[in-house]
Amino acid sequence: MTQTMKRIVLAARPSGVPTAENFRLEELPLETPGPGQFLARTIWLSLDPYMRGRMNDAKSYAKPVEVGATMEAGCVAEVVASNHDGYAVGDIVVGPIGWTSHGLSDGTGMRKVDPAVAPISTAVGILGMPGLTAWVGLNDIAKAQAGETIVVSAATGAVGSLVGQLARHKGMRVIGVAGGADKCEYAVSELGYDACLDHHAAADAADLSARMTEAAPEGVDVYYENVGGKTLEAVLPNMNAHGRIAVCGIISWYSGAGVKDAQPLPAVWGAILRQRLSVQGFIIFDHYDRFSAFLAEVAPKVRDGKLKYRETVTVGLENAPDAFLDLLSGRNFGKQLVRVGDDPG
Amino acid sequence: MTQTMKRIVLAARPSGVPTAENFRLEELPLETPGPGQFLARTIWLSLDPYMRGRMNDAKSYAKPVEVGATMEAGCVAEVVASNHDGYAVGDIVVGPIGWTSHGLSDGTGMRKVDPAVAPISTAVGILGMPGLTAWVGLNDIAKAQAGETIVVSAATGAVGSLVGQLARHKGMRVIGVAGGADKCEYAVSELGYDACLDHHAAADAADLSARMTEAAPEGVDVYYENVGGKTLEAVLPNMNAHGRIAVCGIISWYSGAGVKDAQPLPAVWGAILRQRLSVQGFIIFDHYDRFSAFLAEVAPKVRDGKLKYRETVTVGLENAPDAFLDLLSGRNFGKQLVRVGDDPG
Repeated sequence: MTQTMKRIVLAARPSGVPTAENFRLEELPLETPGPGQFLARTIWLSLDPYMRGRMNDAKSYAKPVEVGATMEAGCVAEVVASNHDGYAVGDIVVGPIGWTSHGLSDGTGMRKVDPAVAPISTAVGILGMPGLTAWVGLNDIAKAQAGETIVVSAATGAVGSLVGQLARHKGMRVIGVAGGADKCEYAVSELGYDACLDHHAAADAADLSARMTEAAPEGVDVYYENVGGKTLEAVLPNMNAHGRIAVCGIISWYSGAGVKDAQPLPAVWGAILRQRLSVQGFIIFDHYDRFSAFLAEVAPKVRDGKLKYRETVTVGLENAPDAFLDLLSGRNFGKQLVRVGDDPG
Repeated sequence: MTQTMKRIVLAARPSGVPTAENFRLEELPLETPGPGQFLARTIWLSLDPYMRGRMNDAKSYAKPVEVGATMEAGCVAEVVASNHDGYAVGDIVVGPIGWTSHGLSDGTGMRKVDPAVAPISTAVGILGMPGLTAWVGLNDIAKAQAGETIVVSAATGAVGSLVGQLARHKGMRVIGVAGGADKCEYAVSELGYDACLDHHAAADAADLSARMTEAAPEGVDVYYENVGGKTLEAVLPNMNAHGRIAVCGIISWYSGAGVKDAQPLPAVWGAILRQRLSVQGFIIFDHYDRFSAFLAEVAPKVRDGKLKYRETVTVGLENAPDAFLDLLSGRNFGKQLVRVGDDPG
């Protein structure tokens, strides 16, 4: 009997908010590695907001996924067959495998994972791309300093939850913004945020802005931007002179929702001018040279429990599309993972 | 017979575009200097776009002018009476005197001008605040580099004309945007711009953007922002990855015109993210520590004719309001000055 593998492909490009119809599950014969290749079985599949951009046929920093091709993703996987000198059967790796149960690799973009450091799922979470994003954005982009006040949007997400904790360790006043009382409670009691504002409970941007002024009476020096929308509009009037905004993501606008109602440019450009703000967009793929410095600082703190993380685990590759749609609408809590295969750890 | 002086006060705050009714000319007895003060007669009054902001009763980086108070301005003036040890009758000074024929000063914000270096009017132009603004924005804020392409809006204005020339000397490709064929012709033939786009001749932002793509086929690395509006919208799609935008002014929006029609925020925030742009607002009053370094580099080049400047001179303090309204609508050409008194130079 031929062994098979499963994958999820982009069935059609979405217009606006994606639906289950944009994805298709396919079953096909298991691939075998050629010379210099290895085959890995996916254990943990990472779902991340940037994937929404790859579904569009638009000029961006990375090529879009072609219709009919496997959706891209970073995965933690186990090598099950190898013709590659650097990888042996049983090795745990992390890299660009995709929304698939098995994948071939020549090692490009791959890295071995040491299961002794932390649970291997962290290699696509707090000790992987989202963690690096948090650390680079806070330190290299926003140049956050002790004694300053920071606002973190998507405060309990894979990136935001680490930004908030690192900022706290640095000696900053840390204000989160999250969607829901449960997330805000978690941000304060578990992650150590000084305050967390529930944007679901705010009537509009002005109301959220007033609540932020109460939580940050001395103004905001750094805004870690993950969402855009109402939260951005609420932060701007609270920004202190010479404040910095690290633009990491704008998830609320990825599917076009709220775009028409958004504040027009002049008010924002005026705030940048009058308050002498520095706004910098960044894409983590430009910053992988910082990975070892990041890991040296953060991995020991994760191992010792000084940095916390929370995962939402969806079981089964076939459920990845629904989990991704939940992520886009903020229904996940912490890092969104799909467990595709058994974790030996 | 009592000697008199003249001044122009803010008669009423404007809503939208200012008119002559927002100003009032007053005549009053000439002031006499107290201990530690000197009296100066204004020779050159500088008109600058930032003054529009001071007319609003809004939170900004500087306090608004009170209704009934003298409009603020930097001026070149001659000391005519002095009880100040540092200033003697006949000294030429530059500093915050205002829209007035005579002013008292205790020396705060004042600096002596050496008439041997260049015509004294340059102390409020290419060798004064606008010149420093150009130099700081290009070097310290935008970190412009040889070999890069820069777009300069208000390309022939007091600030833009120096930005363009400094960028050219630095070895950049320099694209100007200005309003009118005469300004564009001057930008290319006199200031050395590689190209200059007439925004009056462009149907809309998309048309201007397409013309910019032709003029800068390899994209734009630095945008020196003086105007906002259509020009900003045209530049954004042309910005290269890791481009920098120095936000110096947004004159097209100062009086609210075009604000409602402006592009909404998501498109701009998306460009900042995807193209990893750095956007930094700055106000020159934060950067006066750079004045001597600026003057050391730029003054010799002005003296030797290697850097050009152009002035629009309006004669008579009573004509300052009309000249200011012209400035706001782009009807000036180069640095806008009012000659209030005789220039001994």
